[in-house]
Parts: sequence; structure tokens; C-alpha cells
Amino acid sequence: MNLADLETPALVLDATVMEANIARLRGRLRPLEVALRPHVKTAKSIEVARRCTAGEPGGITVSTLAEAEYFAGNGVRDMLYAVGIAPNKLAHVLDLRRRGVDVAIIADNLEQARFAGEAARAAGERLPVLIEIDCDGHRAGVKPDDPALVPLGQAIEAGGCALMGVMTHAGSSYNCRSTAAIEAVAEAERAAVVIAAQRLRAAGLAAPVVSVGSTPTAMHARRLDGVTEVRAGVFVFFDLVMAGIEVCKVEDIALSVLASVIGHQSDKGWAITDAGWMALSRDRGTASQPLDQGYGLVCDADGRPLDGIIVVDANQEHGILAHRSGDPAMLPRLPVGTLLRILPNHACATAAQYDAYHVVRRSRAIETAWSRIRGW
Amino acid sequence: MNLADLETPALVLDATVMEANIARLRGRLRPLEVALRPHVKTAKSIEVARRCTAGEPGGITVSTLAEAEYFAGNGVRDMLYAVGIAPNKLAHVLDLRRRGVDVAIIADNLEQARFAGEAARAAGERLPVLIEIDCDGHRAGVKPDDPALVPLGQAIEAGGCALMGVMTHAGSSYNCRSTAAIEAVAEAERAAVVIAAQRLRAAGLAAPVVSVGSTPTAMHARRLDGVTEVRAGVFVFFDLVMAGIEVCKVEDIALSVLASVIGHQSDKGWAITDAGWMALSRDRGTASQPLDQGYGLVCDADGRPLDGIIVVDANQEHGILAHRSGDPAMLPRLPVGTLLRILPNHACATAAQYDAYHVVRRSRAIETAWSRIRGW
Repeated sequence: MNLADLETPALVLDATVMEANIARLRGRLRPLEVALRPHVKTAKSIEVARRCTAGEPGGITVSTLAEAEYFAGNGVRDMLYAVGIAPNKLAHVLDLRRRGVDVAIIADNLEQARFAGEAARAAGERLPVLIEIDCDGHRAGVKPDDPALVPLGQAIEAGGCALMGVMTHAGSSYNCRSTAAIEAVAEAERAAVVIAAQRLRAAGLAAPVVSVGSTPTAMHARRLDGVTEVRAGVFVFFDLVMAGIEVCKVEDIALSVLASVIGHQSDKGWAITDAGWMALSRDRGTASQPLDQGYGLVCDADGRPLDGIIVVDANQEHGILAHRSGDPAMLPRLPVGTLLRILPNHACATAAQYDAYHVVRRSRAIETAWSRIRGW
Repeated sequence: MNLADLETPALVLDATVMEANIARLRGRLRPLEVALRPHVKTAKSIEVARRCTAGEPGGITVSTLAEAEYFAGNGVRDMLYAVGIAPNKLAHVLDLRRRGVDVAIIADNLEQARFAGEAARAAGERLPVLIEIDCDGHRAGVKPDDPALVPLGQAIEAGGCALMGVMTHAGSSYNCRSTAAIEAVAEAERAAVVIAAQRLRAAGLAAPVVSVGSTPTAMHARRLDGVTEVRAGVFVFFDLVMAGIEVCKVEDIALSVLASVIGHQSDKGWAITDAGWMALSRDRGTASQPLDQGYGLVCDADGRPLDGIIVVDANQEHGILAHRSGDPAMLPRLPVGTLLRILPNHACATAAQYDAYHVVRRSRAIETAWSRIRGW
């Protein structure tokens, strides 16, 4: 099988590029002496997860219980469900634990601690809980110096759960504009969880796990003293948002969407393809970056970028390609039927539109297909 | 089963609201004497499609061959695949036709006509083709007065396909800011295909099918003389983009995402939910409208909007709710575990994230589940 044998659009994964990405992050983390707990929300594929964890300790991070079920079904036994627990998911988490899957949850408030404690006691389990720490005002979590932190840890223990430690996610690292800025966010991320863990320990609570994670901070943290594990997901594939903040190069992007040219509006300098926002996702993450890549950067079928050609607009099943200057003369000849590969703004969002990866290795030959899952 | 028995996020469809939407469009089109060929790209569900076509002639419109396969498997025999044909899909289309499914394709250029003709001749089929007409400069298509139109029609016939007529989609109607503007776009849409059909017929070509379609123009066209069918999809569910251009009211929106409150950042006036952009989609279609609804408008579990509360930001599996004013005092009390229903910006994009609809009728009781499909 070859890329030319596929119906378009289709999702293409260059496994050689992906393996280099995995090796690069592992190589970074080894001297920092922390475990990698890959966040499988990006790839949602056991084949990719196995390549992240091979030969190294540490489980995985999941963003949905559908992921938890799928990876459990594929033999993974150690998982952190890294979205603040909703009461209606506790029975499912406890059912996974009954089936031998060590799922830990996260919480940042007393109401969650109470719901989790009630469910755990009813199930006769000490459900492991990490407290979510807010390191950058980005989303959820308790500030490391919040007076509510220690009482929350005590309530988790007293309510019937097991306080395992703390975790945070430096979501603001995605908005950095320089490596120095990412390094500063990484240090703030590290300091936030280390301080929170110290406060819990000073109050007599165990907090063995000190977990941080975002791809930019994982790639640029200068030290991780006091941290026990790093969660990161996008690093396996990378994407244009990561390239835009110089966390990777464009040639490190392992994921692309195979598309066909179906027509032209020559007066406008447009080529029309069959990869719209359903195929590329609606993510416009580069819109706020210095170099706006539209709905994606256009490459030839071998993955080489076409100079300055981006997806300038998208409808559900149509993409509109043009030169970023808007100059019609700058659009290369792209006859109907031309196969293109479009690099995504955000790997997590684009991959989510597909049920399988077509795996290549720096060629158009398809080596295999890897399934992926979705839903909740 | 009740909404409270679901794990969140989940997709909720109010069938009573949907049936009223379908009846409203059918009621509009009846005196205009045109058939409805519903575009199933929104719902991607046989249960919904059956409610659109019950008792009336006319097939369906599909946006992918995955839809074509699914609806064929559920007994639908008359389909228009309304995305300009890519050469790599022709074998699949012809295979569907061999299996008794009357799939027509669309084309707007000679290269497509040549590929389609070669494939059709090889298969011993006269593949039916509609010429795509560009009525508003929005995307693809031949302008109705383009000198290339008649030669394209002749090439389709001479190449071995059957020219069935013309079709267009007034995509620009989504950007209208008044009913008068939509009426004008609808008339331009009608005129474009009628003129194109007349030109083809004057050249001795048959063009029995004259097809228009977009939900705004379908809801507001004042006359459809010369048009034989209307394609529309979003009208079954409606959404905030449609409400924003007054094509529907907010209470006509049949689709919502069930979410749970999982925490708060009280100083910021935020409630955090487990419905992020994976659950809501990345669509920000109301961002360019007078009333920006963020990632969605927040309702209680019965579907009643919470005054001024929207999803102000979203990460993959987290939504951030706040009052649109940003005033923390305006956020109502929403304890952890509170169930909410979030109305989507764009029904097609949001529904695409799910494999099933949980069907209710103006209550929290779940009557049934309807499956839906995805992919290509």
C-alpha cells in the first residue's frame, strides 16, 4: 500500500519522525532523573503509547475514561486520569480499579474530596488522589500557597481516599514567545508543585508523587529537582503551534493529513481540496502567533513544505489553499488529483477526527495502520 | 434512563424541538413547490434522516463516502455526494452504484470531468454529474456566466458521464447580518443556478436538476422558481450561529452537550466543567457575530439558558464558564456535580465529536439513543 492508494482525507503518521521525538524527550528527562508518564490524549493509540514507555518505568496519563478503558484493555495497569473528577465518573473509576487497573484521580476542592470519599468508602477502596495545583492561573487547581491546600489534603485522607501527592499543568507555556519565557514557566511549574508538596508533608501528609507536565516545559525545563514525573503528550507528534514557539522544528512534525486537490479558483489564487475543518479540525492555534499558518501548512506528498502555501480557509469538507501573501501568481501548479500532506496546527485536535493512523517512514509506502480511539 | 445517569460529556438531542424544525422547513418549501434533499452531514444519523424524508420524495445529500456507505446500508438509494469529486473516490462511487445506490457526483472543471469519464467508461456506467455553480464567490464552482460552463457540460456528456444539471451552495449566507440580506443571497443563489441551467439547455444539454442549498437561504428564500430541490442540513438541529443571524431562536436549538461542574476559580468568577473543546468542538463561529457566545451558551439540565453564562474558554477536556461581563458576582451558584447543557456554536462540528445522540423530549428522561457515524 502506498499513500496514492488511499481515499482522501486520511491521517498519516511518520513513525521515524515520531520515534526521534520520543527519543529526544526521553534523552532530556534522563539526566533530570524524572519518569515520563506520557499523556495519551494526543495519540490515543496503544502502538504509540508502547513506543513512549518501552523499557522505562511509569504508567500513562489519560484525559477520558474511554482512554482508560482502551489502554486497560491493552494491558496498561497504571494511569492518572488528569481531569478534575466529576461525581458521575467515580463509579466507573472504581470499577476499573476493581478490575486491577490502578487509576488515580485528581481534585482541587472539598466537594470533589467528599464525593470521592463517599464513593471510595462504599466500594471499600482507598482511591488514590492527587491535588491539582494552579501554577499559572491558566485553568483549575489550588494555588501552592492557598490556605485551603492542607485542609484539602486532610479532607482527602479523612474522607477515605489516599492522598498521593500533587500535580500541575503549565498551560500558559503554549502562549510563550521565547525559549527563555518557557524556561521561566517551567521553573514556576516546578516550584509550584514542590512548594505544595512540602506544605502537605510539613502537615504530616504523605505526598510521594510530584507531577508536572506540558510539552513546552518538558522540552525546556532546566532542572526538575523535587519532581518525580513529567506528563507530556504533544511531543510525540508535535505540530505547528509547537513549531511556532520553537519547541520543535517544522520537520519534527510527525502527523499530517493527506488531501486531494479537487479544483481551483484561478483568479483568486486558490486551490480547493477535500480536507476541510472536519479533516483538519477547527483549531486555529497559530492565529495568535507571529506566523499564522491558517488551518495548516501545505506539503507535497513526500512531506516537503510548499513554500508559503497554507490552508487559508476551510469549510466542513473543503479546504482552500493559497499563498500566504494572497498573490495568485505564487500558487504552484497543483492539478486536480494532486496529493498533498497538510501539517496540523494542533496534533490533538486533528488526530481526534480519525480512527486510524496510516504509518509511513520517510516515504509514501504505508507500513501499517494503527487504530486510535475517541469519545468519553 | 435519565440525563443524571450519564457520564459527562454526552450529546443530548431534543427530538421534539428537532421535529418542529423539520416541520417548519417542510412547511416553507411546500408552497414553493421544491423537494427537500436533506444534507445529512449535520446529523449523520439514519434516525434523523428518516424524520426529514418521511412521506416525501427526494433522496439525501452526503458530504463523505462514509456517509454514503452508512445510509446505503440503511436502505437509502438516492444520494448526491456534494463535494467536488477527487479522482481517488471514483472507484468507490462506482462500486456503490454497482450495488444499486444511485450516487450522483459534482464537478466544476474539465480535469474532474476527464477523470470521471474515464472511470465511468471503464465501469460501463453513465455516472450522473451535476456542475457546481459559484453563486457568491464563497468556495468552489463555475460562475453562471463563465464561458467555460457549456464546454464543461459538453465534456461531461462526451466523456461518458450523464450531465444531470447544476447545484450551488450559498455559503456566504452564514455571514449575513439581516433577514433582508439572507433574502438577497437566496435570490442570487436561485438566479445563479437557473441561469446556468438555461445556458446548458440552450446549448442542447439536458439539465433536469437545479439544486440550491444552505439553511439560511432555505429558511428565507421568497421564491424558488426554476429550482427543483433544496439541500439543507443544519436546520434539523440549528445552533448559535444560526440564532445569531436570526434564522432560528435559541429555543429552536435541538442539540446540547451535557457537562458537569468539576470546580471553581471563585476570584475569577469561573466554573470549570468537563466539556472542553473535544466535547464542544473548536468552532468559534459566533466570534465574528454581534453576540459572541464563546464556545457555547450554558443552560441548566432542563435546557433553560443561564442568563449571560457562556463557555469563555476551553482546553481539550476542560471548559471555563463565566458571565459574559466577566463580573465574578454574576456567576450563579453551581456546585460541583451540577449538570449543565451547553448549546453549540455549530451543530455539525459539535455533533461530529460523538458516536450517539441521547434523545430526550423536553425533559431529562432519555427516550432512546441514536447512533451516528463519522470519518471518510
